[in-house]
Amino acid sequence: MSGTIYGVGLGPGDPDLISLKAARLVTQADVVAFFRKPDRPGHARTIVEGMLKPGATEMALEYPVTTEIAADDPAYGEALRPFYQASADRLAALAAEGRDVVVLCEGDPFLYGSFMHLHSRLKDRAKVEVVPGISGMAGCWTAADQPMTYGDDVLVVVPATLDEGSMIAQIETADALVVMKIGRNLAKVRRALSIAGFLDRAIYVERGTMADQVVMPLTDKDDDEAPYFAMVLVPGEGRRP
Amino acid sequence: MSGTIYGVGLGPGDPDLISLKAARLVTQADVVAFFRKPDRPGHARTIVEGMLKPGATEMALEYPVTTEIAADDPAYGEALRPFYQASADRLAALAAEGRDVVVLCEGDPFLYGSFMHLHSRLKDRAKVEVVPGISGMAGCWTAADQPMTYGDDVLVVVPATLDEGSMIAQIETADALVVMKIGRNLAKVRRALSIAGFLDRAIYVERGTMADQVVMPLTDKDDDEAPYFAMVLVPGEGRRP
Repeated sequence: MSGTIYGVGLGPGDPDLISLKAARLVTQADVVAFFRKPDRPGHARTIVEGMLKPGATEMALEYPVTTEIAADDPAYGEALRPFYQASADRLAALAAEGRDVVVLCEGDPFLYGSFMHLHSRLKDRAKVEVVPGISGMAGCWTAADQPMTYGDDVLVVVPATLDEGSMIAQIETADALVVMKIGRNLAKVRRALSIAGFLDRAIYVERGTMADQVVMPLTDKDDDEAPYFAMVLVPGEGRRP
Repeated sequence: MSGTIYGVGLGPGDPDLISLKAARLVTQADVVAFFRKPDRPGHARTIVEGMLKPGATEMALEYPVTTEIAADDPAYGEALRPFYQASADRLAALAAEGRDVVVLCEGDPFLYGSFMHLHSRLKDRAKVEVVPGISGMAGCWTAADQPMTYGDDVLVVVPATLDEGSMIAQIETADALVVMKIGRNLAKVRRALSIAGFLDRAIYVERGTMADQVVMPLTDKDDDEAPYFAMVLVPGEGRRP
């Protein structure tokens, strides 16, 4: 009997926004795995603090690099590829022994999630099941109390890591916009929003749904310091009966 | 003491994907309200079947029209506007009496949700709190076992109600694509995907996460019959270490 590897979406950060299914899997798990940077607790692990079964085995999957190499540099893939492969091998070995493993994922596993890189390496070798989660962006627009898409509004979700020209072109076609993974890219995002004529409508959100969340008009933010998980939202203005 | 009006996202359909917070609000509510078509149970109400407190008051908000008038016809807004206003007035009156009301919302309330039309009419008159939910589209891509966005992939979410020319232009700028609210628009969606060169990658999903879900390559679907809540997905093909 092989075990199952669960990729479990935990939502935007507030533990109360975990699904019933995810909460059950997390609290009953004998083995939980999660990504983190070295010397950090890991976002996903933080969300479930206090929920794990006593004695559960915790397996930290530590990124060998994160932002110190640009993601479009070939060296980035060369560093990450063996890491994802080794992580997948560790999980597959547990499943082969008949053990279930819960992989903790922030947000939704299939929306810009690191779990996707395990899923592709595991799906033909083991039983893999994904539990969707409330996305980080839904957490942010709820934190901002901002309905996003009306009627025929087109929603465009753009990673802030995109080059400036492509970003401007994408923003110009959007009715409603989410810019994800802001990090060190906020100055570029501001310029792109300004050129596309969206700056005045932009809302900056950090840690949406968490106790220390920050929500403000982007034009009120005085600096370009932002964590990786910050987002910029531009709500749609479509048909409203 | 005024009551609170909660707009509660219930996720894509599987009751096990309701959040802990939403489940608590739903099971403890004295008054629940929900949209539905006349003579239908209502999608959101169906998700919470068996969860309501015995004796809870149920308030069905019945759309005066849905698909029999095109959404871009001025008559559509003229029919819907007084309905949303009267619904908001009913909820505001309960809140003014000090009663909390849980408004059941499928998916996420702020992503193409009818609750947005109550939120805009209530937020300055009553205490309104939104609980985000797992989006219908996340339910569909999980049902399809399909990671959606890698690396710098841009995700474009397009309502199928958009005119064909605009739809083609939007699809052509996308890396990953979700076409929502398919309904009677499937033939148009097929043409747009074909012209934009995306048809071979398109996946058709009905009722993702529900017991009777349907997932297939769109090119395998022999007819253009589809429910309103069906979606078409085109997963991204971005950078994968």
